Amino acid sequence: MAHEGQKVSLTGIKPTGDAHLGNYIGAIRPALEMASTFESLYFIADYHALTSVRDRAQMASWTRSVAATWITLGLDPKQTIFYRQSDIPEVFELQWVLSCVTGKGLMNRAHAYKAARDRNAEAGVADLDAGINMGLFNYPVLMAVDILIMNADVVPVGQDQIQHLEYAADIAGSFNHLFGDVFSLKIPEAVTPPGESGRVLPGLDGRKMSKSYQNTIPLFAPESRLRKLVRSIKSDSTPVEAPKDPDSSAAFQLYENFATSEDVADMRGRLEAGGTGWGELKNALFEELNAQLSPLRERYEELMAPDSEIDTILAEGAERARERAQPVLAGVRRAVGIDRL
Amino acid sequence: MAHEGQKVSLTGIKPTGDAHLGNYIGAIRPALEMASTFESLYFIADYHALTSVRDRAQMASWTRSVAATWITLGLDPKQTIFYRQSDIPEVFELQWVLSCVTGKGLMNRAHAYKAARDRNAEAGVADLDAGINMGLFNYPVLMAVDILIMNADVVPVGQDQIQHLEYAADIAGSFNHLFGDVFSLKIPEAVTPPGESGRVLPGLDGRKMSKSYQNTIPLFAPESRLRKLVRSIKSDSTPVEAPKDPDSSAAFQLYENFATSEDVADMRGRLEAGGTGWGELKNALFEELNAQLSPLRERYEELMAPDSEIDTILAEGAERARERAQPVLAGVRRAVGIDRL
Repeated sequence: MAHEGQKVSLTGIKPTGDAHLGNYIGAIRPALEMASTFESLYFIADYHALTSVRDRAQMASWTRSVAATWITLGLDPKQTIFYRQSDIPEVFELQWVLSCVTGKGLMNRAHAYKAARDRNAEAGVADLDAGINMGLFNYPVLMAVDILIMNADVVPVGQDQIQHLEYAADIAGSFNHLFGDVFSLKIPEAVTPPGESGRVLPGLDGRKMSKSYQNTIPLFAPESRLRKLVRSIKSDSTPVEAPKDPDSSAAFQLYENFATSEDVADMRGRLEAGGTGWGELKNALFEELNAQLSPLRERYEELMAPDSEIDTILAEGAERARERAQPVLAGVRRAVGIDRL
Repeated sequence: MAHEGQKVSLTGIKPTGDAHLGNYIGAIRPALEMASTFESLYFIADYHALTSVRDRAQMASWTRSVAATWITLGLDPKQTIFYRQSDIPEVFELQWVLSCVTGKGLMNRAHAYKAARDRNAEAGVADLDAGINMGLFNYPVLMAVDILIMNADVVPVGQDQIQHLEYAADIAGSFNHLFGDVFSLKIPEAVTPPGESGRVLPGLDGRKMSKSYQNTIPLFAPESRLRKLVRSIKSDSTPVEAPKDPDSSAAFQLYENFATSEDVADMRGRLEAGGTGWGELKNALFEELNAQLSPLRERYEELMAPDSEIDTILAEGAERARERAQPVLAGVRRAVGIDRL
């Protein structure tokens, strides 16, 4: 719960696929830990995802899946504020207002937009803006709004998003310059959440676990599929009896993230000594994952059911988020001379 | 009032100054006449004006002045729908959604944006985007939303806005292509309203009456100021007794727009015959204007008073406009997979 003077953290979650183990360890768990230090807000950035998700069924199911996943993994909707971006109309009205004070030059220089142009250039496409929609181009303004309307101090973002945090302060500054001091001009702090420092989990092929590599282990895969996936983790052909380098093994790195430190040390010793095969490691990894994930999977399935409490949770979250957003927008409207009637 | 199958006209009014005689004859009167043919909606485009109006007091007073002016001149808020753009949050949410389906290339080619770049080029400014804000750049999307969310068939616009009407159909087409048939793909009809064909009134110096030439006669100037302004209308030094060419005179052209056809014919005869000076014409013009404008001025002042019925009228208009907008937005949300909870 909020304490006087406590800093506010804001975590945006783009619903662009079902969560996998890499998301959990690298992003979800650390983001959830922020709730112990900060007054924490979490939102599903569905209208942000709309710049790329073009399928209504996917959008609906991924949004629900994000909500179910985070609640399953420990997001407490009573102790935090958990909402869908699309349920806060104030966000989109403020998006227009801040557009009017944002120089187009700032957007021309935004990383995500420039990266999209670079991809066109590399592909030999003559029109560098080909395939770039105005949602993508406007996105840094929307992100500034997400932050400013909740007065967030701390935002867990990757390196590539730090420029956008600076933009939030730039845009706030432009508004204040024209219309008076409405926004705080702090640059939101980009945090790598406590104790996690951007941990990266390997995927089935040993590369970083990532949807784009199609090498993921879904967090809530049914047991039989989980077993199959774990067995398919890439390993070398060192014979069972030979000593092995645990750190060369993706399965071992995964095991390290889920087993107790005693079990990990024991497994390391057995692999290094020889006589323990990769198959045995994988069995242990599967047992560990399955033991931890089974109860979660059950809770997740419950939440994904059409009549679950998800809708109520998000509706209540939206209400509380709007209570924060409305006075901010009201102040902005007053400042520009467009008061409520 | 609406009839089954009646076409819908939509008039946007940008609050960027107090109305003058030229606005009345060239734009307001013809736009008001549309209400006899179409189901008519009128809105104050205050958030559009925000791309250039940077003073809260001006924004507030010009917005109120637009409302008071149009009601004074005959806008019937019971027979039409009269609202402020800023009171329809659905507009800004839809603005974001349609941004996501609008190619940036389309905006790069928009006339208003290109004109702003041209002005930079002519002024020798190296960065062609200098001074251009994202509100201006996004404006064609907002205009498409204004039209699509009200399902307008007919829009009174100048030549320079016809491209933006085509854009509304383009953007609707992109949305339908990605998400299914939600919008009608008609290109809204740009009308020069009935019987007026873009009538242009001369200003004090004989050029077109326009705020940018500072040659206007405000519609609701106090009587003494009205008299002074009419006397200051440019005229040549033909002596009283000499025959005159009425059509060379700005004062006569104004007189033609306000006096009865008998009075105009009589005045024309007297000027052509000689013996009637420009001063006499100006007196007649002043008397005519003052007779017509005095009761209007009074009504306008009443409406401009802080406790007038303007707020209630606009609040009721917003309610009715939102009743039209909400099902459109709901259909869009369904189509993209972001349903209401």
